[in-house]
Amino acid sequence: MSDFLSAEELEGLDAYWRASNYLAVGQIYLKSNPLLQVPLTQAHIKPRLLGHWGTTPGLNLLYTHLNRLITQYDVNLLFVAGPGHGGPAVVAQTYLEGTYTECYPSVERNTNGLLRLFRQFSWPYGISSHVSAQIPGSIHEGGELGYCLAHAYGAVFDNPDLIVACVIGDGEAETGPLAASWHANKFINPARDGAVLPILNLNGYKIANPTVLSRISEEELSALLYGYGYDAYFVEGDEPAQVHQALARTLHTLLLKIREIQHAARQPRRNAAPERQLWPMLVLRTPKGWTGPAFVDGCRVEGTWRAHQVPLANFQVPGHVQQLEEWLNSYRPGELFDADGALLPEIAALAPTGHRRMSANPHANGGLLLRPLDLPRFADYAVELPVPGCRRAEATRVLGFFLRDVMKNAQGAGNFRLFGPDETASNRLDAVYEVTAKAWMDPLEADDQNLAISGRVMEILSEHVCEGWLEGYLLTGRHGLLSCYEAFIHIVDSMVNQHAKWLKTAAGVPWRKPVASLNLLLTSHVWRQDHNGFSHQDPGFIDLVANKKSDVARIYLPPDANCLLSVADHCLRSRNYINVIVVGKQPEWQWLDIDAAVRHCLAGIGRWGWACRDDQDPDVVMACAGDVPTLETLAAVTLLREYVPDLRVRVVNVVDLMVLQSPSQHPHGLSDTAFDVLFTPDKPVIFAFHGYPALVHRLLYKRTNHDNFHVRGFKEEGATTTPFDMAVINDLDRYRLALDVVERVPRLQEQRHAAQSRYWSMMEKHKLHLIEHGEDLPEVLNWQWTPAT
Amino acid sequence: MSDFLSAEELEGLDAYWRASNYLAVGQIYLKSNPLLQVPLTQAHIKPRLLGHWGTTPGLNLLYTHLNRLITQYDVNLLFVAGPGHGGPAVVAQTYLEGTYTECYPSVERNTNGLLRLFRQFSWPYGISSHVSAQIPGSIHEGGELGYCLAHAYGAVFDNPDLIVACVIGDGEAETGPLAASWHANKFINPARDGAVLPILNLNGYKIANPTVLSRISEEELSALLYGYGYDAYFVEGDEPAQVHQALARTLHTLLLKIREIQHAARQPRRNAAPERQLWPMLVLRTPKGWTGPAFVDGCRVEGTWRAHQVPLANFQVPGHVQQLEEWLNSYRPGELFDADGALLPEIAALAPTGHRRMSANPHANGGLLLRPLDLPRFADYAVELPVPGCRRAEATRVLGFFLRDVMKNAQGAGNFRLFGPDETASNRLDAVYEVTAKAWMDPLEADDQNLAISGRVMEILSEHVCEGWLEGYLLTGRHGLLSCYEAFIHIVDSMVNQHAKWLKTAAGVPWRKPVASLNLLLTSHVWRQDHNGFSHQDPGFIDLVANKKSDVARIYLPPDANCLLSVADHCLRSRNYINVIVVGKQPEWQWLDIDAAVRHCLAGIGRWGWACRDDQDPDVVMACAGDVPTLETLAAVTLLREYVPDLRVRVVNVVDLMVLQSPSQHPHGLSDTAFDVLFTPDKPVIFAFHGYPALVHRLLYKRTNHDNFHVRGFKEEGATTTPFDMAVINDLDRYRLALDVVERVPRLQEQRHAAQSRYWSMMEKHKLHLIEHGEDLPEVLNWQWTPAT
Repeated sequence: MSDFLSAEELEGLDAYWRASNYLAVGQIYLKSNPLLQVPLTQAHIKPRLLGHWGTTPGLNLLYTHLNRLITQYDVNLLFVAGPGHGGPAVVAQTYLEGTYTECYPSVERNTNGLLRLFRQFSWPYGISSHVSAQIPGSIHEGGELGYCLAHAYGAVFDNPDLIVACVIGDGEAETGPLAASWHANKFINPARDGAVLPILNLNGYKIANPTVLSRISEEELSALLYGYGYDAYFVEGDEPAQVHQALARTLHTLLLKIREIQHAARQPRRNAAPERQLWPMLVLRTPKGWTGPAFVDGCRVEGTWRAHQVPLANFQVPGHVQQLEEWLNSYRPGELFDADGALLPEIAALAPTGHRRMSANPHANGGLLLRPLDLPRFADYAVELPVPGCRRAEATRVLGFFLRDVMKNAQGAGNFRLFGPDETASNRLDAVYEVTAKAWMDPLEADDQNLAISGRVMEILSEHVCEGWLEGYLLTGRHGLLSCYEAFIHIVDSMVNQHAKWLKTAAGVPWRKPVASLNLLLTSHVWRQDHNGFSHQDPGFIDLVANKKSDVARIYLPPDANCLLSVADHCLRSRNYINVIVVGKQPEWQWLDIDAAVRHCLAGIGRWGWACRDDQDPDVVMACAGDVPTLETLAAVTLLREYVPDLRVRVVNVVDLMVLQSPSQHPHGLSDTAFDVLFTPDKPVIFAFHGYPALVHRLLYKRTNHDNFHVRGFKEEGATTTPFDMAVINDLDRYRLALDVVERVPRLQEQRHAAQSRYWSMMEKHKLHLIEHGEDLPEVLNWQWTPAT
Repeated sequence: MSDFLSAEELEGLDAYWRASNYLAVGQIYLKSNPLLQVPLTQAHIKPRLLGHWGTTPGLNLLYTHLNRLITQYDVNLLFVAGPGHGGPAVVAQTYLEGTYTECYPSVERNTNGLLRLFRQFSWPYGISSHVSAQIPGSIHEGGELGYCLAHAYGAVFDNPDLIVACVIGDGEAETGPLAASWHANKFINPARDGAVLPILNLNGYKIANPTVLSRISEEELSALLYGYGYDAYFVEGDEPAQVHQALARTLHTLLLKIREIQHAARQPRRNAAPERQLWPMLVLRTPKGWTGPAFVDGCRVEGTWRAHQVPLANFQVPGHVQQLEEWLNSYRPGELFDADGALLPEIAALAPTGHRRMSANPHANGGLLLRPLDLPRFADYAVELPVPGCRRAEATRVLGFFLRDVMKNAQGAGNFRLFGPDETASNRLDAVYEVTAKAWMDPLEADDQNLAISGRVMEILSEHVCEGWLEGYLLTGRHGLLSCYEAFIHIVDSMVNQHAKWLKTAAGVPWRKPVASLNLLLTSHVWRQDHNGFSHQDPGFIDLVANKKSDVARIYLPPDANCLLSVADHCLRSRNYINVIVVGKQPEWQWLDIDAAVRHCLAGIGRWGWACRDDQDPDVVMACAGDVPTLETLAAVTLLREYVPDLRVRVVNVVDLMVLQSPSQHPHGLSDTAFDVLFTPDKPVIFAFHGYPALVHRLLYKRTNHDNFHVRGFKEEGATTTPFDMAVINDLDRYRLALDVVERVPRLQEQRHAAQSRYWSMMEKHKLHLIEHGEDLPEVLNWQWTPAT
């Protein structure tokens, strides 16, 4: 085959690659003498050698060649580094492009800047060794593995002009989330969305083992990728010139294929709707730690697992310093940088310019592109409510109408999508199907409903892929919401953790603009899992989120549909948060009209005057957070009216869980004064809580009255049973709450035994009815709030 | 093709299938009139209709045919129902086999028993609608999706005689963990392990959507499965007789293939070691809700997503009761059951008998087969320690030697494996490679180390697959331990949740025998993540586990290597727990000799007399939990000796975190009296904690002195920095702890300002040194405990 690249092009690419590799090695090793202007000594080498060399040359090679693609064909390209452990490579590239210096002016493009660049890497108060929010051009943290491909797909939805080159390490390819993400190509509409170019970089090894995909036969690997729906092109080698030629040629072919697919799908007068395409991808097989030391102390390093992190260390060992110097010099820095440490102009000219630089692509700093949603007036969707508790509604269904119109208003801008693991309709948000459908590119069958290539509801039965899509969509400047069964959001605990870390880091990076918040709607919650039972009962995700930094985490427990509307509107307007909203989907009694709901949600907490009784100096405060606990609390209040007519009761509802924390711990924290006024400094508080009681205790342990808080919530007593009985077996039901009051109000001590007897006989009646009839007692099923007389 | 089954065989299989489908429909719908002995009316139908019909006929078909395989070829077969939502099918099958009645004698094999069987399903205080620990023959909860295949592989490791038929729904196949699990076949040694027979059941739909794998072309699907390393056989149809023939023929072929592979690998005089095989698998494409209502209210149901749960409901609608009756009668119950409700003997005779019944396979009740590990004397591996703090050791490396010999002693029984996501060596447990290797079936290359087909260390870069393997291995009666980076164990939060639920449920099932505990060793923890930085820093997994039921969750924070040995020995002997051990792998000072360690771990908490000073009536209690907090606490103690020579200090170390809870909340909880003696009722307690401080507050909020507990721990301030500086930025370092003491001991109020100045000048010195040298201050790096004079 004739050469694809001219000698000059080849020379340029190789020089650029060498320059980036030199800078990567320099970052890992050097704290001074960045251009080797004097012979290298131990004194120039960092005391703590940290970083991942193994994946670095492969990333540099790809980045360099993608640059060529951009300059040759004017492509809008974004780089996602799955093996983001190779931070030195991506940092080097952004520095070579000049973006790094634009973002961090003190890292100049001269010897002084090189010194700073090298020293700061993995240095205290410097930069992390993984690709992170600190690195321009990145939307993907290179720490925890598994999410690069889902992020890449999320980024190209509704970005028809964008191509994301997503490098996938063969280690990461073994993870579940990555394995599931390949199928995201079934949801790409070539007419409307951009394209992902997956690049599987097989360097053969993870930390200490060969990788699965590098050791199966090429026949199996090709079949696997074809089975995932890709047309895989292979480039392989360990001889740079040959690999440069093959890679340049192949990337050229891949780009043409992508453009061909997109061109065909975007013909204005085509006859048929676009169908799913066999998208092209690249498999690049190059040695791990390529161009690094071939042998160290007699052991083979290049091309083995030994090249994973720092391949050459222990500089007390004779010869090691020299070996490092030879390694650095093998890149011929004198031919790459001038005497002042600047990249030679003819090499620098090979990089794209302006926004075409992958490190300066505005999609990677999504806040730059973010347009606020055109939100409809949420009050227009409110449940009419003349008095509290006069009717029932399904909160998420009400929200669905609002989301329908959010979606409708966003259709023009194409900047809002709804995500869910096959649960959007089950979660009763199906009103959105009036204005859009679920994205689906494969053939349709007769009974399919609400599927279309133009859909903006994203459903695949993988919480990981949904969450990754949403993150990629948000970080490139759009908006979205993921609805999920409450118990199964734990599947993405670790992803949400990592996103929280990204947001915290990004908030400290001055050139990063705010992005839309990650909105998680958790429904089908612990208290209404009827037949799904114990396996579907876990309210602990909010415990995880409560551990996150207070400037990131927000947790809302709207007690009814109108509060949900107010909260959802607020969340969709917010930036840089993780908003968790927990609310049921079943018909439940409604409490606040929309005006009251807005006021209540604004404060985050409130005394519900209409439910209180003579509460200027209350005997007890009955607090609640969550829809079912609110219902049980109000039912307990009506029981108490009958049992203890003169009881002075205050009812407090909490929507924004973080108000419970002290203001020193969370910006939403209620002041201690206001807290004491609301909860009294010394009266018993019976707190009915949606989740694990311990969460409430840990949030308010600094409050004056916390010793008197008695919290009921989920205590891991799950079962296949009725909704009311779920409350009973977890001691959250109205009878138990009423008894709690009697047991804890000092002046009711004499009524205690009578109340206990009443409670036990009620429970006996309840259990017998339940076992006999399989449903709740009529007085429970038909209970309705009656205002106090 | 000529018929595979004789007419009589076909008739028998079909009758058995019809019987199981009848029982499944009965469970979903009927609360009386189980054999339709009177015309069906609304009064016979349950008030709450719950359950999943869609997957049920497919599961029944497979179970019925697998029974035939067992009886024909005497196979040791276990059934794993990935679509475990189809509980009615699996329950029906175990009932038909008689096992259900053996386990639950009141569910007799007559009309009365049928009535109970039907009523209890998804009925309060009955059984769950998913396959669960309540169902004989099951090792896999059918709630959260994604783990069936990993469980199946875990079950066959070291069980050469066992074949696990693992049914995978096409919904579940979209999840990440399932997608990753296919590659588990690369770790099956046909000579030593059993076989998994994956059965991908494509019924086309999940809750509300078509499935990805059912809509891609057969060409892509075949390629995908071949790429995963399987030889896929397809059976497809919606005409029962034809499907029976094809399925029986194909299962026969698949079994022969498996036996052929195993036979070849087990030849005593074969020339070469076994290699990885292209294992056979089945793709079964049958309609969702097959044999159920074809249309309901004019909409097509059978073969669509509408058949997912309860396909026919609203029995007020005219005709629905009749349609249900016709559906039930379509199975011709009169030809299946006698007048007393017993299955006709000629049909019952088709099932396997005794332990060959899949529902009575002892592997599914692993405790029956569990043999205790032959554990070496852990004291023999102890770090010699004449005085506290006189030497350093890497705790996990010390543990590695113990685990090496645990492994060695278990080689004969073949009942212990070590699991880890590519981190066993990184976690410094590599001594195990002296006696075994990492399991690896693919070709080896020159620089591979510690890989062998006989290995019992299981490494794949998927926490999900590792966790699933371990669960499957444990539930079939073996032992194991999974080591993982602390931050990334969050990846399996939800799996561990589900395993905890399984253990809680199983503990209430009288015929289930105890299984070995799930042991999780979390290392490379938050405080020692040097270059990996923020993305690798999260100690919150123990918060998740602390939410689990107290009879399941155990959390250990050994302060040194000898305590780790004692804790690990205890965990490996324990049953039915989830044991979480958090400990570092870096060289750290050692504190307790082995005798002291044993005593300390037995109590779970203790006053460290050698570190206390005049503490009969202490000014302050300095408590610590975790290795780094313990180090910082002891360093603070030495600082305080200098600053405040007359300070009366007590040092308390916590190994077993659950001692902090009140005994009413956890069986390990320290009595209130003992707690008050240790922590005083009223003195300040400075508590240095490994994880998020809130966890300590929530564990001890019921304790007398809790208002005086001042807890330091991880406050989400992660960074790429030195180990000591990680403590500094989270206010856990020795200087901060010492200042905390001065600030909180009333009689030191006058020294407060001087101490604060000293602290700030120290911090300035620290930061300057750090930024200049990239490593910690010499006095920090070289700190060593000195006993009080």
